[in-house]
Amino acid sequence: MLYSIEDIRYLETAFSRFYDIGAADSGGVTRLGYSREEDEMHALFALMGEELGLEVLHDQAGNTFLSNTKEGEDYYLIGSHLDSVVDGGRYDGVAGILAGLLVMRWLKRDGRLIPARIGAFRCEESSGFGISTLGSSLVTGGHRDEGLSARAGRDGGTLGEIFAEKRFTLNPEPIKGVRRYLELHIEQGRILQDRGQHIGIVSAIAGPRRFNLYLQGKAEHSGATPMTMRHDALCAAAELILEIERIGRDESPRNSVATVGTLSVSPNAINVIPGEARLQVDIRGVETASLDEMERRIKEAGKSISQRRGIGFLKENISDQPPVSLSLAMLEKMDKIVSSLGISRLRMISGAGHDAMQFAKLCDTALIFIPCRDGVSHNKNEYASIEHICEGAGVLYSYLCEECNEL
Amino acid sequence: MLYSIEDIRYLETAFSRFYDIGAADSGGVTRLGYSREEDEMHALFALMGEELGLEVLHDQAGNTFLSNTKEGEDYYLIGSHLDSVVDGGRYDGVAGILAGLLVMRWLKRDGRLIPARIGAFRCEESSGFGISTLGSSLVTGGHRDEGLSARAGRDGGTLGEIFAEKRFTLNPEPIKGVRRYLELHIEQGRILQDRGQHIGIVSAIAGPRRFNLYLQGKAEHSGATPMTMRHDALCAAAELILEIERIGRDESPRNSVATVGTLSVSPNAINVIPGEARLQVDIRGVETASLDEMERRIKEAGKSISQRRGIGFLKENISDQPPVSLSLAMLEKMDKIVSSLGISRLRMISGAGHDAMQFAKLCDTALIFIPCRDGVSHNKNEYASIEHICEGAGVLYSYLCEECNEL
Repeated sequence: MLYSIEDIRYLETAFSRFYDIGAADSGGVTRLGYSREEDEMHALFALMGEELGLEVLHDQAGNTFLSNTKEGEDYYLIGSHLDSVVDGGRYDGVAGILAGLLVMRWLKRDGRLIPARIGAFRCEESSGFGISTLGSSLVTGGHRDEGLSARAGRDGGTLGEIFAEKRFTLNPEPIKGVRRYLELHIEQGRILQDRGQHIGIVSAIAGPRRFNLYLQGKAEHSGATPMTMRHDALCAAAELILEIERIGRDESPRNSVATVGTLSVSPNAINVIPGEARLQVDIRGVETASLDEMERRIKEAGKSISQRRGIGFLKENISDQPPVSLSLAMLEKMDKIVSSLGISRLRMISGAGHDAMQFAKLCDTALIFIPCRDGVSHNKNEYASIEHICEGAGVLYSYLCEECNEL
Repeated sequence: MLYSIEDIRYLETAFSRFYDIGAADSGGVTRLGYSREEDEMHALFALMGEELGLEVLHDQAGNTFLSNTKEGEDYYLIGSHLDSVVDGGRYDGVAGILAGLLVMRWLKRDGRLIPARIGAFRCEESSGFGISTLGSSLVTGGHRDEGLSARAGRDGGTLGEIFAEKRFTLNPEPIKGVRRYLELHIEQGRILQDRGQHIGIVSAIAGPRRFNLYLQGKAEHSGATPMTMRHDALCAAAELILEIERIGRDESPRNSVATVGTLSVSPNAINVIPGEARLQVDIRGVETASLDEMERRIKEAGKSISQRRGIGFLKENISDQPPVSLSLAMLEKMDKIVSSLGISRLRMISGAGHDAMQFAKLCDTALIFIPCRDGVSHNKNEYASIEHICEGAGVLYSYLCEECNEL
């Protein structure tokens, strides 16, 4: 048995201490990146580290680390995040942090001198500023401050203002000394559950490519403008949304998806034909060719729909993270370890982005998944069992022990 | 000639005094019903009345009247409104008020003892609270306070709170003494312009019927949920929007229209599949059978789309104003007068609702249209010429004189 009843109780308690932070009326949680709620999560995380006798470190981007190493020594980094989407679930990110806490606890209990840190990275979700994995990308050189500072969040404040207030910087010193990066995350899909497997070993992470689509029609009186005389931006948007869905379906065999996540209409009044619509599109895949094909078709659809309806069309790129392949050596070692532990496993791809993406540029990186109920995520009904988190932590711990024996 | 160069200058000045109130960055104006901006419009209107030596009266619903009559005497009422939609134009409503001011000025100049009032009715547009012609309906018995008081506006405040603060009441005393109701309005369509006619004489006003449509899908991770496993509320909404457009087109031959004016998506985040969507639909027509048919088909479409996508669907009625036929006697008299003035004219229906609708229940009512450029309305580019407003005022004035000679 990899974990004890005490381990379960430790994680249950830790989970329940995070529980109420950012609790929304809906039943879910809203802990947006760089918000007061995320600050609170990090403060509690730091406190838990102190309770385990770990050193608490902060970097210039607001990321928080719990460390058992001396300054200057290279270390294994177990990373994840503590922010959430709007009305999100309580396991996305937190599960990885809980697993990290357990690994640190075991290292201490067993008197193992393996240098390790847990990193809680800021603003992994793009719900706040339209950029994902912000905290980890800032310290791995993934984002240089190109217009970042002017980017406004949901509450209107810009990243520049928020960083100044919190005394962070958008050009922080790069992270140093990371020997390997390891991350545990809930799958956020239902493949593990459907196939009855316990651990997903991720070979590649889909690259999210995002853009704004603007449609400019004509705001006119809804009662006095005959149907044939209209330039309705919302009807054009509706056609485009369905076309984007169709394109995503066509590219499904290549493991790609396409989503319109936000739509805003102007003037958005019941008695005015919509004059403007803005859509935000998120397409993902592990094959660049598929992403390119989807983007090309979406642009073409936007052009032809708007032309036919006598409407203006503009496509604006928000971000483009190329798909990331993870370390083959770590993948194979992980495979061997999980197998030797007698745990069922599956090689898979990750449709969702993770902080691991940012670290893969810097060092050998591994990402493992644990099941989450019905694949539900980004939603109050998100659920992963504490046992699965413990089991995943056991895999990470075994990996560290195995690797350090080899050194 | 019905009007002089001084009349034009008088109205140009009056128009320019209203100009800046509620000016929006877009170039249009936002003067929502029962807002600070509408208050300001009414205060200026009252001031203009005093300048003309008229008595200023207020009723319990916040409507403002300029009167040349003694209390207790029956009078002709020339009505319109001073509120606007969000980012609306400067002529919708205001044109009718300007025409009224000119008629009152002429009555005084010519020493005619015809008892008359201009009424500026509150909240004619539904952009604020989802209810149109609120001020005029409250004093004509069209709305009794059934849930009105809890209805929240765009700024979050409820009608009950706003009315309490302004010391109005949602159950005001009914208006008394109205002999006939007359209204001039911009057409908000381009039929007069296209046919080169100057005055539209309205025989019927389309009844706006409105409802909310709710779609309840499943908010899930946009990267980790394959296309085939989704219950995307926005994609369902998109299908429904296009179906509503199709239904409106099918009913065009009966002069009906169908519009989705607002759409809100939840959680509205770029990396989450939309879990909920709410649409507000406005259908209009002068034939009840056509309205019934559209409503039936929209409900059916909502049901079948949501069923196919495994999504919840709910239709909620907001309001239903039946189509209104205007006084045939006044229609014919108006026709004769416009013809005798040598002005080109057209009988037509009104696709837009107007305060005249509310008065048609109470007394003989007439509504005339003047052209507006390219039919554009509810939009900063709305434009009507001061000459057309003067000409329309001349028609109203001639009508009053003609009718009073007959008394």
